[in-house]
Amino acid sequence: MGKVLVIHGPNLNLLGMREVEIYGTTTLDEINENLRNRASAVGIELETFQSNHEGEIVEKIQGAAGDVDYIIINPAAFTHYSIAIRDAIASAGVPTIEIHLSNIYAREEFRQESVTAPVTIGQIQGFGPDGYYLSLEAAIRRLKR
Amino acid sequence: MGKVLVIHGPNLNLLGMREVEIYGTTTLDEINENLRNRASAVGIELETFQSNHEGEIVEKIQGAAGDVDYIIINPAAFTHYSIAIRDAIASAGVPTIEIHLSNIYAREEFRQESVTAPVTIGQIQGFGPDGYYLSLEAAIRRLKR
Amino acid sequence: MGKVLVIHGPNLNLLGMREVEIYGTTTLDEINENLRNRASAVGIELETFQSNHEGEIVEKIQGAAGDVDYIIINPAAFTHYSIAIRDAIASAGVPTIEIHLSNIYAREEFRQESVTAPVTIGQIQGFGPDGYYLSLEAAIRRLKR
Amino acid sequence: MGKVLVIHGPNLNLLGMREVEIYGTTTLDEINENLRNRASAVGIELETFQSNHEGEIVEKIQGAAGDVDYIIINPAAFTHYSIAIRDAIASAGVPTIEIHLSNIYAREEFRQESVTAPVTIGQIQGFGPDGYYLSLEAAIRRLKR
Amino acid sequence: MGKVLVIHGPNLNLLGMREVEIYGTTTLDEINENLRNRASAVGIELETFQSNHEGEIVEKIQGAAGDVDYIIINPAAFTHYSIAIRDAIASAGVPTIEIHLSNIYAREEFRQESVTAPVTIGQIQGFGPDGYYLSLEAAIRRLKR
Amino acid sequence: MGKVLVIHGPNLNLLGMREVEIYGTTTLDEINENLRNRASAVGIELETFQSNHEGEIVEKIQGAAGDVDYIIINPAAFTHYSIAIRDAIASAGVPTIEIHLSNIYAREEFRQESVTAPVTIGQIQGFGPDGYYLSLEAAIRRLKR
Amino acid sequence: MGKVLVIHGPNLNLLGMREVEIYGTTTLDEINENLRNRASAVGIELETFQSNHEGEIVEKIQGAAGDVDYIIINPAAFTHYSIAIRDAIASAGVPTIEIHLSNIYAREEFRQESVTAPVTIGQIQGFGPDGYYLSLEAAIRRLKR
Amino acid sequence: MGKVLVIHGPNLNLLGMREVEIYGTTTLDEINENLRNRASAVGIELETFQSNHEGEIVEKIQGAAGDVDYIIINPAAFTHYSIAIRDAIASAGVPTIEIHLSNIYAREEFRQESVTAPVTIGQIQGFGPDGYYLSLEAAIRRLKR
Amino acid sequence: MGKVLVIHGPNLNLLGMREVEIYGTTTLDEINENLRNRASAVGIELETFQSNHEGEIVEKIQGAAGDVDYIIINPAAFTHYSIAIRDAIASAGVPTIEIHLSNIYAREEFRQESVTAPVTIGQIQGFGPDGYYLSLEAAIRRLKR
Amino acid sequence: MGKVLVIHGPNLNLLGMREVEIYGTTTLDEINENLRNRASAVGIELETFQSNHEGEIVEKIQGAAGDVDYIIINPAAFTHYSIAIRDAIASAGVPTIEIHLSNIYAREEFRQESVTAPVTIGQIQGFGPDGYYLSLEAAIRRLKR
Amino acid sequence: MGKVLVIHGPNLNLLGMREVEIYGTTTLDEINENLRNRASAVGIELETFQSNHEGEIVEKIQGAAGDVDYIIINPAAFTHYSIAIRDAIASAGVPTIEIHLSNIYAREEFRQESVTAPVTIGQIQGFGPDGYYLSLEAAIRRLKR
Amino acid sequence: MGKVLVIHGPNLNLLGMREVEIYGTTTLDEINENLRNRASAVGIELETFQSNHEGEIVEKIQGAAGDVDYIIINPAAFTHYSIAIRDAIASAGVPTIEIHLSNIYAREEFRQESVTAPVTIGQIQGFGPDGYYLSLEAAIRRLKR
Repeated sequence: MGKVLVIHGPNLNLLGMREVEIYGTTTLDEINENLRNRASAVGIELETFQSNHEGEIVEKIQGAAGDVDYIIINPAAFTHYSIAIRDAIASAGVPTIEIHLSNIYAREEFRQESVTAPVTIGQIQGFGPDGYYLSLEAAIRRLKR
Repeated sequence: MGKVLVIHGPNLNLLGMREVEIYGTTTLDEINENLRNRASAVGIELETFQSNHEGEIVEKIQGAAGDVDYIIINPAAFTHYSIAIRDAIASAGVPTIEIHLSNIYAREEFRQESVTAPVTIGQIQGFGPDGYYLSLEAAIRRLKR
Repeated sequence: MGKVLVIHGPNLNLLGMREVEIYGTTTLDEINENLRNRASAVGIELETFQSNHEGEIVEKIQGAAGDVDYIIINPAAFTHYSIAIRDAIASAGVPTIEIHLSNIYAREEFRQESVTAPVTIGQIQGFGPDGYYLSLEAAIRRLKR
Repeated sequence: MGKVLVIHGPNLNLLGMREVEIYGTTTLDEINENLRNRASAVGIELETFQSNHEGEIVEKIQGAAGDVDYIIINPAAFTHYSIAIRDAIASAGVPTIEIHLSNIYAREEFRQESVTAPVTIGQIQGFGPDGYYLSLEAAIRRLKR
Repeated sequence: MGKVLVIHGPNLNLLGMREVEIYGTTTLDEINENLRNRASAVGIELETFQSNHEGEIVEKIQGAAGDVDYIIINPAAFTHYSIAIRDAIASAGVPTIEIHLSNIYAREEFRQESVTAPVTIGQIQGFGPDGYYLSLEAAIRRLKR
Repeated sequence: MGKVLVIHGPNLNLLGMREVEIYGTTTLDEINENLRNRASAVGIELETFQSNHEGEIVEKIQGAAGDVDYIIINPAAFTHYSIAIRDAIASAGVPTIEIHLSNIYAREEFRQESVTAPVTIGQIQGFGPDGYYLSLEAAIRRLKR
Repeated sequence: MGKVLVIHGPNLNLLGMREVEIYGTTTLDEINENLRNRASAVGIELETFQSNHEGEIVEKIQGAAGDVDYIIINPAAFTHYSIAIRDAIASAGVPTIEIHLSNIYAREEFRQESVTAPVTIGQIQGFGPDGYYLSLEAAIRRLKR
Repeated sequence: MGKVLVIHGPNLNLLGMREVEIYGTTTLDEINENLRNRASAVGIELETFQSNHEGEIVEKIQGAAGDVDYIIINPAAFTHYSIAIRDAIASAGVPTIEIHLSNIYAREEFRQESVTAPVTIGQIQGFGPDGYYLSLEAAIRRLKR
Repeated sequence: MGKVLVIHGPNLNLLGMREVEIYGTTTLDEINENLRNRASAVGIELETFQSNHEGEIVEKIQGAAGDVDYIIINPAAFTHYSIAIRDAIASAGVPTIEIHLSNIYAREEFRQESVTAPVTIGQIQGFGPDGYYLSLEAAIRRLKR
Repeated sequence: MGKVLVIHGPNLNLLGMREVEIYGTTTLDEINENLRNRASAVGIELETFQSNHEGEIVEKIQGAAGDVDYIIINPAAFTHYSIAIRDAIASAGVPTIEIHLSNIYAREEFRQESVTAPVTIGQIQGFGPDGYYLSLEAAIRRLKR
Repeated sequence: MGKVLVIHGPNLNLLGMREVEIYGTTTLDEINENLRNRASAVGIELETFQSNHEGEIVEKIQGAAGDVDYIIINPAAFTHYSIAIRDAIASAGVPTIEIHLSNIYAREEFRQESVTAPVTIGQIQGFGPDGYYLSLEAAIRRLKR
Repeated sequence: MGKVLVIHGPNLNLLGMREVEIYGTTTLDEINENLRNRASAVGIELETFQSNHEGEIVEKIQGAAGDVDYIIINPAAFTHYSIAIRDAIASAGVPTIEIHLSNIYAREEFRQESVTAPVTIGQIQGFGPDGYYLSLEAAIRRLKR
């Protein structure tokens, strides 16, 4: 039915292993596994990717152009300053969904600015790992039309 | 399985009838109908409410305390200045999900401030009417735990 | 020749009775009477409305859609924060003229911001009750074309 | 000896019932009862009023002109944005005392701005329910002169 | 019945000839002609003046002191920075009406600041060439009293 | 019943003698006398202290630790910049009430910032000399519990 | 002993004739006369110049290079925005003294910014016409060394 | 092949004669001479113009409409505040290139704002007199297409 | 003819001994000596005072009320934050002249804010020790009237 | 005659292939080819380099020290936040020219801040691919001296 | 080997006795004792000084000029506003090390501004009492060279 | 006794070789050598790491979790914007000391913001290479407890 690329930004490789009081105990592998299960159930190809390197994420997004139907991205720290990722999203032209585990409105003020959000379809934030599931649902609903 | 209250803020009663180039042609009745269908399918009681009056919304939220499991709210214009609604959400103590039809990061700058968001679980924005569906899914997933 | 709706915002019902050193001694009834006289002289239907409730003004504007040719509104205090009224004006699509009795540039700084002005045709401010007369003239000239 | 009107803003109807760790367990009824007792002891007529509707508070203030000697108001959330209530206080011309239960200087930054304060006699904040008692004392001392 | 001086600021000599999609096709000569007709019809002496030089406008305003009853000025670009013109208006003491063709609230943010407005009677903006006509009406109504 | 220390900040020694149009004609001695009378009537020990020296006020507050039940302080000019006094209040740990004679919200903007307020119980401002009386009442009510 | 050029900025030609409650009744001619008398008494050549045109002031300053020992300038309104005059002062290299009749710290906030001051020797402000006399004294003392 | 107008703003007539440590020793005449040589070599008509008067520059730009193919302008000090020149450029509709001798990013902060830049094709800054040569090359390359 | 009090703020006791490249080699004693000579020559009583203690300066100003005709003050570092000194000047009611040795507009940005200036007659800054002489002349000219 | 290094920042590898309505259809290869042709024509060695990785660009700049005469860099998104690249330019000490394809003054506000510009010779922006050619000309003119 | 002066600012005399959860239980005497031991071990003369009075600290710093090799200062609250202490440090010319017990970056925002830091050698902050030891080491290392 | 990881950020590999007037002539190798000597003398394992790549530093910090007792980091340019490094420090949970060679309070304003500092123990800045030695001492003192 389509192809979805899920990109996890810096430090998300530690998910579920550190700062569990904030981010919970679900690991990134478990999240990816759940997403893959859901995707295959509806006949969607799903690829996951994590990097702590801005340049690698930029190039992953560039590579998605013409190959992927939707990008789901949790830019993590890059959300707040990586104009390079913003430009990559705008340039690649693949419809993109932004997801955050925590409610960024309820944290430090600098986390409330998103340089990437204006070039995405929309954001889902605050729902923990469920946010990834909901992002995938958002993509599925659009692919189904 | 639980009860969900959906609150629509000011001017949303015109949805689907005016400014369709921005908000699409889906009407509020259609959205509510869809939500009710999905809710009944999973055994959830769902109530919908629209008001252009800040005070009425405040009191609707107050009344939900002890009666409702989750509130889904699109505060519309009130998002940006109604501290009364913010205080009502904090005071009622009912877990609340904020939803916006359009991507507020891609519109006027004043629409990027949300006084209500810090006291909610999270936000879903930019997905049009799908946002309501996703918000309900978020509530369902939490109710199921 | 057409229909004009005149909306007076909060506290304008006290006009001419209190703070006369600022706002003068003309009452709202006298203003409305003068407007009606001028309107009937040129064959225009004119309705006046005053409310201290934001929600009522929002709904009055919504109701004007498809029924009224021009709205003349003095949002008073709501000028500075009621995004709900702004959205109602944008949503109703009725061409709207904003009027202020006093010169808001010569008062407190917070009165110099108008959240409603960007979605109106234009503003007339500082001319006291004459401002209503001039607003009506502005509407008449446009209706005559 | 005179008449005092006590106005309670939005969400104060929940006082003592919710968020008791912040606002304590005294209910609004108990506060009102205490105020009435103190007032009758010194021969003052005292009326209390609570509303979650900005427009109703505006009109209550307007109605106090010429009838009430002092207004004691806890505008709650409206403190921070209701220019309509500010204008009503300025317009009605009844000397007004502003009271807050919590110390607004020790909370979120947006709670430190009061749009109503500049048109009042003064403020009493941070003393919990005692603040109402002290506000009434302030009025009594002025009435006695 | 009195004398009115109409001052047009920089680049208004191009009116109706360039950027017609913003400012329309009415030329400055046509506007002046219409104003003169209206003025003579009510027995008012009317002088028009256009300059791209700040200093010339300052001196025109100075010269109006004691000779002119009302000034109608469209300061155009000077609106936003010419404190010299502001001081000239304040110094000359001739009641002054500010007019803008476009709705400055709906344009670039820097156009929303007016350094001249605080020393004028009021402003009329957004009505295109009609704004001049309305400004003259405002002056006429005051001259008639 | 307890001990209260009243601290008057810089220039308050001139109270009642200069700028009487702003601060009234009551002298600091009269205020202190009234406070002492009220305190002794309810069995409270009350000490008053005035200084124009920040360091002396800091040390007076330090000395109150373990000796005084409540501090009532009018930091006057120091309100707006003396972080040293703020730190002394926080460090001494004696519950402190801040009082201002005038309504600081209705004066110059810099007077609306209080660096000391966040570490106090609350503030009473705008009631002139009555403010001291009300502050003492606030302390008495707390001591009585 | 040297040569001094005194430059008066826009609207100063009206000095002593308008807004006398702010600027007093001394005219510019009287000020110039007094300066000339003082200058000739100490053997200094003194030239005075007034203009409402920024460009003329720029060129007067340019022309002073190599010919004049000190410039005394009251830039009036240009103080706050004329970077062209600032650059002319810096470029001409003639030591320059800035003078203001009124105390600009006690007026509107925008008058407290001086774009010219950083490239002058110093400023004398608030002393009315005496300020010119003091500026000349400042120049004389430097010429005498 | 076309016609180019080169406009030099205020104080540039002093170029090469004063502040040589910043701007170098090349005079404006030498720059103009070099530009004319280069222009004639490629068959372009080139006119140069310098003025210290904002109004003259506005009118020079206005006059270029329909007559000139490209404007090269160094607005100098006017860069930072002359909205009149900005409006003239936008109004005239002649493609315009902005040039600065020094690197304005490495100087005072106020020099980093350009009110004219948004309505030009682009800017060349920091290359000293070479900047004019490069600006002409930019125009030539466009004329050649 | 009158009495003048000269107040030198913190660190001015080091004048002429340290940082001579900024402040020159004239010592405070020499400045005071010169002022006394000039004062006695015109029959004025002159007192000088230096303190590094804000409280002492506050009290010196308080003591001047009713005893001194003019205060000349160089608040030095206190210029930028001592609201206590500002209040003392306003409270004492003695006309006050502010003087700075260096041109504060040409130094660090925080030195360009003066909290004391709004309550003085005027300021003289940038002329080094001459500034004291000029300040005294300003006082003399006023005393002579 | 010398050596020039041309560095292209993130997403410029997509040039000419995506967002052609903004950036045109010229590819990076074509730009590099043109630059090489021009360079070899004048006997300059020219190397080109593109990277989406900030660290690689930092190291490329470091490596240029002592080897390259001029760097031409289009930092793209890094322009606005990469202080690391700024420090590399300052540290390497190779004279650097900054180039932008689009006019950054006419785009989003965040694109108007350049953290790299203050340490470069100058910038050329808005001329599309011509900007590279002009940058090379700027380097050539300097190499020729 | 040299002489070091250690200055402790306001409220540090309470160290170890109050707010121990923030500042720990080490007293100022213990810190001073430790510093003296370390100093005598390496042959350095060390003097300690604590004051709650800004003026005393200013004068202590002034007195150190020519007598002391290094000052170690914890300005405490004065860090954030005492320009008088800053000027004293700059004026005395004794190399100065700034130390803070807590990490000021992790506390209230106003604690992140240091007016004294720019005129010191450097800062050591966040290490509790160890910070004094490290500051002394920094001085020792420099004295040893 | 423990293990310490020293991380050097971008451009520090050039230390001692370029911009020696700012950073001195000590090379990074020499600093590392000195640190290793001191560490081995007290029985501490010390590893050093330099990278110009943000991602590599993020991963180095991640890898230190559970393996290293203290991190000493000079984030250099990344100090001011790398929220990814900040998050890595917070996530890894290894106590971290921030060090800067120069006094960042005495340089450009943007260097005074540290996004990493709030999640570290403390900072040592301004002491040049000594800062590393002092940071190690800070770690040693903590390891010894």
